[in-house]
Amino acid sequence: MSESSSPGAPCCLQVCRLMRPEDTNIVGNVHGGTILKMIEEAGCIVSTRHCNTQDGDHCVAALARVEKTEFLSPMFIGEVAHVSAEITYTSQRSVEVQAHVVAENILTGAKKLTNKAALWYVPCSLKNVEEIKDVPPITYASPELEEEGRKRYETQKALRQSSNERSDEVVAPPPNPEKHTVGFSQSSLIHLVGPSDCTMNDFVHGGVTMKLMDEVAGIVAARHCNTNIVTACVDAINFHRKIKKGSVVKVQGRMTFTSNRSMEIEVIVEVEPLVEVDKGKYCAVSAFFTFISLDKKNRPLPVPLLKVEGEDEERRFREGNARYLHNKEKRLAERERQQ
Amino acid sequence: MSESSSPGAPCCLQVCRLMRPEDTNIVGNVHGGTILKMIEEAGCIVSTRHCNTQDGDHCVAALARVEKTEFLSPMFIGEVAHVSAEITYTSQRSVEVQAHVVAENILTGAKKLTNKAALWYVPCSLKNVEEIKDVPPITYASPELEEEGRKRYETQKALRQSSNERSDEVVAPPPNPEKHTVGFSQSSLIHLVGPSDCTMNDFVHGGVTMKLMDEVAGIVAARHCNTNIVTACVDAINFHRKIKKGSVVKVQGRMTFTSNRSMEIEVIVEVEPLVEVDKGKYCAVSAFFTFISLDKKNRPLPVPLLKVEGEDEERRFREGNARYLHNKEKRLAERERQQ
Amino acid sequence: MSESSSPGAPCCLQVCRLMRPEDTNIVGNVHGGTILKMIEEAGCIVSTRHCNTQDGDHCVAALARVEKTEFLSPMFIGEVAHVSAEITYTSQRSVEVQAHVVAENILTGAKKLTNKAALWYVPCSLKNVEEIKDVPPITYASPELEEEGRKRYETQKALRQSSNERSDEVVAPPPNPEKHTVGFSQSSLIHLVGPSDCTMNDFVHGGVTMKLMDEVAGIVAARHCNTNIVTACVDAINFHRKIKKGSVVKVQGRMTFTSNRSMEIEVIVEVEPLVEVDKGKYCAVSAFFTFISLDKKNRPLPVPLLKVEGEDEERRFREGNARYLHNKEKRLAERERQQ
Repeated sequence: MSESSSPGAPCCLQVCRLMRPEDTNIVGNVHGGTILKMIEEAGCIVSTRHCNTQDGDHCVAALARVEKTEFLSPMFIGEVAHVSAEITYTSQRSVEVQAHVVAENILTGAKKLTNKAALWYVPCSLKNVEEIKDVPPITYASPELEEEGRKRYETQKALRQSSNERSDEVVAPPPNPEKHTVGFSQSSLIHLVGPSDCTMNDFVHGGVTMKLMDEVAGIVAARHCNTNIVTACVDAINFHRKIKKGSVVKVQGRMTFTSNRSMEIEVIVEVEPLVEVDKGKYCAVSAFFTFISLDKKNRPLPVPLLKVEGEDEERRFREGNARYLHNKEKRLAERERQQ
Repeated sequence: MSESSSPGAPCCLQVCRLMRPEDTNIVGNVHGGTILKMIEEAGCIVSTRHCNTQDGDHCVAALARVEKTEFLSPMFIGEVAHVSAEITYTSQRSVEVQAHVVAENILTGAKKLTNKAALWYVPCSLKNVEEIKDVPPITYASPELEEEGRKRYETQKALRQSSNERSDEVVAPPPNPEKHTVGFSQSSLIHLVGPSDCTMNDFVHGGVTMKLMDEVAGIVAARHCNTNIVTACVDAINFHRKIKKGSVVKVQGRMTFTSNRSMEIEVIVEVEPLVEVDKGKYCAVSAFFTFISLDKKNRPLPVPLLKVEGEDEERRFREGNARYLHNKEKRLAERERQQ
Repeated sequence: MSESSSPGAPCCLQVCRLMRPEDTNIVGNVHGGTILKMIEEAGCIVSTRHCNTQDGDHCVAALARVEKTEFLSPMFIGEVAHVSAEITYTSQRSVEVQAHVVAENILTGAKKLTNKAALWYVPCSLKNVEEIKDVPPITYASPELEEEGRKRYETQKALRQSSNERSDEVVAPPPNPEKHTVGFSQSSLIHLVGPSDCTMNDFVHGGVTMKLMDEVAGIVAARHCNTNIVTACVDAINFHRKIKKGSVVKVQGRMTFTSNRSMEIEVIVEVEPLVEVDKGKYCAVSAFFTFISLDKKNRPLPVPLLKVEGEDEERRFREGNARYLHNKEKRLAERERQQ
């Protein structure tokens, strides 16, 4: 092997890993959360590397936003997940990373694109996590590419600012909820942040949080359907506040909407500092996950209708339906454009 | 613990997690140790949270004692384990947490109570692990509840103080032990404590130790029976000394007694500091685990009689038999009381 | 990002990962075992992929031998480890993979070569682990490269066949061994093989075994020196027998030799099937690890002389000394050749 082969261009990174039993559900489907975590690790490496290429304090890139991500085809245990991440735009204080994931079956040689994602990072000083550093500019292959990047930047900035931290509390379900109601499938996970979950400046990797969110959404979906379920799509996620070491993370999921063949689950991440109790609880992140139900041959199955009760659940169902119709239209429009 | 206790109250916590391949044995039964570890994590969170609600140094709750725990029914891979933990009593320097665990089959919706447990925690200062902090008092729903708690506290305190650290060494088995002898199934695990095993003030979580203890007891039972074995019961465990980061933990198990349908295994945890060698080895914990053997339909199987040799083994068998008969009587008495 | 970017040439693979707390010792040095495990995973992927490119039963590549590996410079927590693996020779039934590892400090941009390794794999049928499949030939850039590969193949084959499975038992140390004796630092780890440790056809990844071996050698070295120790070199390792799921793995380490600035530790892996007891214990692997002791600025420290007692320990010390002198000569000769 040539000595000179470099670990890759400075703005790009290839990460790959064999999918193991703990990455998958019982039937061997890789969790969407495992893939999101790999993507985020690659994005964190590539943007931290880039942001430290100029003088000044060292910094670590913190995940600020993930654009909507669709899972195009399932990945299985024993396959190799290849994640390619590349910096595609830089503003003064943020970095856009685009990633795509290919699943390779090393027995048959088959490869398939499983998803594409776009992530926004912000460089935080190693000395003071709250201090945001400037980002060195990248060079673009053409002025058009820069202009397109600037538009994506403006769009996400506007969306980010309009997205408020949630106040809508998740209430405990009634004691003996009826099947297919919201209360019946509502679930939570509680995780004590450990050293392996954290970056060099002691806040939780965004990918760790997304993996927990996908896990709870999967439990909600499985409870509703009683079948093999997989992540189909994750809506844009904004990371408003960092989660520090020594926190207890409570991840709550409740179903908001069902179509014939999909379920929408709202996931809310509440953080409680374990020791500095006076700082109080806060909602760090929230997002909508869409799951589908599969039969043994990985073909989509019909989903039981969600039974909604009361005004709040009805409102959330209507809002979920609106998101569903909006996405459907968008997909159709895209398909037409491509033809 | 009240079924209706909400997950939001400061003294309560609900934790759940999907059981994965690494949580179970080869036939898919969840290890008792996995469940003990989940219970202990919930207890640590709820009591650390409670003990930090007053002024003064921050602290982390360290496990001091677990009362006898029975495993009422097996849990399987793919099920969701729900742990509810609640603070039920506080003395000046200790916290009692009661927990119960429900297994939910998310495919069929079936739920079953798998076990109840009671744990005692002591708050240790973050600045100095050896300094015990005062515990803020909880309020009780009735004076009777407080009085019952006080009695449980006095009982465990007396038992704790009478339980000595062991000195009874585990000797190496003979070179070619005969089948069904003590030496034949005697086993150990040796583990180097890593950062993921530790609390914020760098000692090992009690749950990590209990999981290793259950694992070695399971190896001993499997070697004796050559069948699918599961944890039926764990006797009260006292944690006399903390295990610090950078220690090598040796967990040894030997069978002490068999009845027709159960095996009793003594587990001894020996700790050797890796760097501060002058401190020497010490026995940190010991306990008796009871296992049963199951056929493919999860029905109990007869257990081969343990062949004892020499005075020590005979004495331990007699003592095991006495514990067995005592427990049997107690169970019968309880059943009569309930009728 | 271009859709067409492929996950790499079929005979090459790049793997990278951020080094986390659990990958390092207390002072932040990455364990040699972590690096060996990453290398082996990359080698397993690239050779499994290659061996499945022709018709016939699917197969998984099993590690048969690792050539001597030197650790040229330490790697630290927070750095990114880049492993590049490439198939460099194929015989009828084996694959040679060469790998090199670069550590990248993403804060400073500094990169350094940490080690090179050569591994030999054998393709085992998925249907029958004991059946070895034929390997499709690779094409070489020049006839010289093929000829050099053939020579490496013949050399390792001869060495492999002459290396016998060990029969030299590790005996228990005396009860209160004196400091700096063999018995004082002798250590073991005992691990129950879990699903995450195994390949698709249910035997343990060679990298998992090497990681345990490095871990125990590190414990031995730390006990001898009481300082920060790191892996400097691992002698060639031959994997004579596969370790199957459901086995208990006992990894024993004892110091055999010390020079002024290095320690040699012999590591022996003994396997005991948990259920198929009739098959009995066997020694699966053994190897010599060389460790050095570092001060706080990562400069080598003198090593206390090993006190040997009795004929066997004296013999092993002499043999270790011979290996040490042989390696020293070889290094000097190589340095001269390069000038």
